[in-house]
Amino acid sequence: MDFQELIIKKRDGHQHSKDEIEFLVKNISDGSMPDYQVAAWAMAVFFQGMSDEETRDLTLAMAYSGDVVDLSGIAGIKVDKHSTGGVGDKTTLVVTPIVAAAGIPVAKMSGRGLGHTGGTIDKFESIPGFQVHLSHQAFLDQVNQVGAAVIAQSGNLVPADKRLYSLRDLTGTVDSIPLIASSVMSKKLAAGADAILLDVKVGRGAFMKTAAQAQILADTMVEIGRGVGRKVIALLSDMDQPLGRMVGNALEVREAIDTLQGKGPEDLSELCQTLAAHMIMLGGKAATLDEALEITRQLIVSGQALARFKKMITVQGGTLDYQADNYGMEIARIRYLLRSERSGQIIDLDALEIGRSAMLLGAGREKIGDVIDHAVGIELCRKRGDVVEKDDILAIIHGNDHERVQSILPQLLQAYKIQ
Amino acid sequence: MDFQELIIKKRDGHQHSKDEIEFLVKNISDGSMPDYQVAAWAMAVFFQGMSDEETRDLTLAMAYSGDVVDLSGIAGIKVDKHSTGGVGDKTTLVVTPIVAAAGIPVAKMSGRGLGHTGGTIDKFESIPGFQVHLSHQAFLDQVNQVGAAVIAQSGNLVPADKRLYSLRDLTGTVDSIPLIASSVMSKKLAAGADAILLDVKVGRGAFMKTAAQAQILADTMVEIGRGVGRKVIALLSDMDQPLGRMVGNALEVREAIDTLQGKGPEDLSELCQTLAAHMIMLGGKAATLDEALEITRQLIVSGQALARFKKMITVQGGTLDYQADNYGMEIARIRYLLRSERSGQIIDLDALEIGRSAMLLGAGREKIGDVIDHAVGIELCRKRGDVVEKDDILAIIHGNDHERVQSILPQLLQAYKIQ
Repeated sequence: MDFQELIIKKRDGHQHSKDEIEFLVKNISDGSMPDYQVAAWAMAVFFQGMSDEETRDLTLAMAYSGDVVDLSGIAGIKVDKHSTGGVGDKTTLVVTPIVAAAGIPVAKMSGRGLGHTGGTIDKFESIPGFQVHLSHQAFLDQVNQVGAAVIAQSGNLVPADKRLYSLRDLTGTVDSIPLIASSVMSKKLAAGADAILLDVKVGRGAFMKTAAQAQILADTMVEIGRGVGRKVIALLSDMDQPLGRMVGNALEVREAIDTLQGKGPEDLSELCQTLAAHMIMLGGKAATLDEALEITRQLIVSGQALARFKKMITVQGGTLDYQADNYGMEIARIRYLLRSERSGQIIDLDALEIGRSAMLLGAGREKIGDVIDHAVGIELCRKRGDVVEKDDILAIIHGNDHERVQSILPQLLQAYKIQ
Repeated sequence: MDFQELIIKKRDGHQHSKDEIEFLVKNISDGSMPDYQVAAWAMAVFFQGMSDEETRDLTLAMAYSGDVVDLSGIAGIKVDKHSTGGVGDKTTLVVTPIVAAAGIPVAKMSGRGLGHTGGTIDKFESIPGFQVHLSHQAFLDQVNQVGAAVIAQSGNLVPADKRLYSLRDLTGTVDSIPLIASSVMSKKLAAGADAILLDVKVGRGAFMKTAAQAQILADTMVEIGRGVGRKVIALLSDMDQPLGRMVGNALEVREAIDTLQGKGPEDLSELCQTLAAHMIMLGGKAATLDEALEITRQLIVSGQALARFKKMITVQGGTLDYQADNYGMEIARIRYLLRSERSGQIIDLDALEIGRSAMLLGAGREKIGDVIDHAVGIELCRKRGDVVEKDDILAIIHGNDHERVQSILPQLLQAYKIQ
């Protein structure tokens, strides 16, 4: 087998054998396959696709290309959740304590944000003192004691995907369903959970721009998971406009806390409850979705969900003051009120533009390694469907730098389509 | 402009502007565009193709990415010839002296062989003492004095193509008509000739496997050349079985000398005369093809073509003994007679298999930089259409290493299909 032969095989629309996939992944993982051949192969996959069998083989080979997390030290059905990424998606912060309060252990590894999409770990790091790096034993202990832990990816998890993804990111080969599916599922399999809930985002702020594409991605991932004996459910959710009203790390933590108390925006609350209910079903604590939704609502109303959140934050070293402004997290120096230039109904609010604006403001990273500002972000006072008068406040920009605030105004105004 | 954006633009089937092409070529040429992005872009071009306009812009940008040869010091219409490469193609050795003898200056840069295809420079180097490296002034002087010179590419000619081609060669992106056309034509334009004859090979031993593909390539290259004011003619010729009877460097020089005396094999003689006649027309020395063919035949019959060949070899430092066995060039130690295992008609002779066998014997290079053995090669005693009895000699293997000779027997026998 040689690399070029395999590139040509895929280029010409043929199917890779299991051995070929394993050979590719091994050589991508250890660096033996040169960057330019990995890139050419990824582009060939972009055009020719992969069969279900190839996608499953690729996922498994990647999952086992490095360390695999052993969660057997945690009792019960471990349920994980994955979102394909978007703008304003703080669901993990809300859903994790609810599910833990329902008696299901959540041992979760999360990622950092890149480009217009935020990352759960960045959001948690807005909380003063919160530790995202725990030893494996401390991670297991915390889940056994508190029922939940969310940490940054550690160890040598899925090295093949690390290299492949960073090359895809630079070579226009991200938008390939088999490559996205295997990237997500290899990480989920390596992270060790028994059951996985997938939240596949659809719309301008997501990888998948249409529901049809998202459905194919969802089906592909479910197929992979079931093929290797994991319980997997996939839901599609809207990412055409941002989720909730807050975009930016500390702002999103604040909104998550509000949502845990039943005071969150409707779209976010509804999605969080749906996700939590599905995880409760996957964890075997409810037989029907209605029953699971009822459990979810009870945990919120009774305050148990918030209590579990507080416990989790404290155990991971975080300090929040639930009476203070912004719950004691950093606050941006500037609040700029973005006012509508016309009257009418907001018929569109572009998640991608909002995500990019937040990134430029300092809430996100243009490239890996960029330092982010946890305090800054965008508060969307009005969203799709709302009727506004001229000069009504559309959004509040929380910034720390006048120039940056000024620079994003045109694209923010453009993100709102008012008719 | 950024590289990734341009990759995605091509990936999604859009057309590059002239500025974009120039930006790409500049950054491919100076190394600023990373290998993996060049590879991904080339694969996107493989799938999405290029418009005539893009292909012309790419060719011109590449042609001017380095030095451009100035042939204005040579009087007359300078006519160049290019073959897209094949097995047993020694036409340049035959055609160059004929055309020079007709009064048309031929200032030619040629390449070396790679893979199953031979290279003109390697063939000339079979001649003891022959110098393929001349200074620019010596090159011009020789053409002015002798009417012809064939040298190895020198200087910094088309650096963009050097880098792009070596990446294409490793990433399964060679077989793309716009990329082949721009690679060939950029080198021809940089080499400075006024008129260009293209010999586009068709068949298993060529890049283009079908006449339809070859015709598209030919049209594309003619279009490019004419678009920049060069006279260009393209011919299609067969490369399904090898050209002539000799495959291997010194053996091919011998056959070229025979052909210059009218004693060459029919297919080779006919193609050489056709090519020479077209070059004579391009050089303005004949008004019709019949007239040009008549001039060609006269130059062979009268011995003027051979005389011009001898002069050219001598001036470039080469020594041949036209009375000696193999004209004084190196002779291989082993002659192995490959005999037919059955009686019947040869209905097929696979050029690719013959080319590969010759390469494995030592006549060619598996990779750039490999040392070749000028003496070894394959003499095809029987070709397509011939009727043979069992035990008739099909071919003579000229080798210097018993193991290598032995190792190629099965594939040589397979190359002959006898019914």
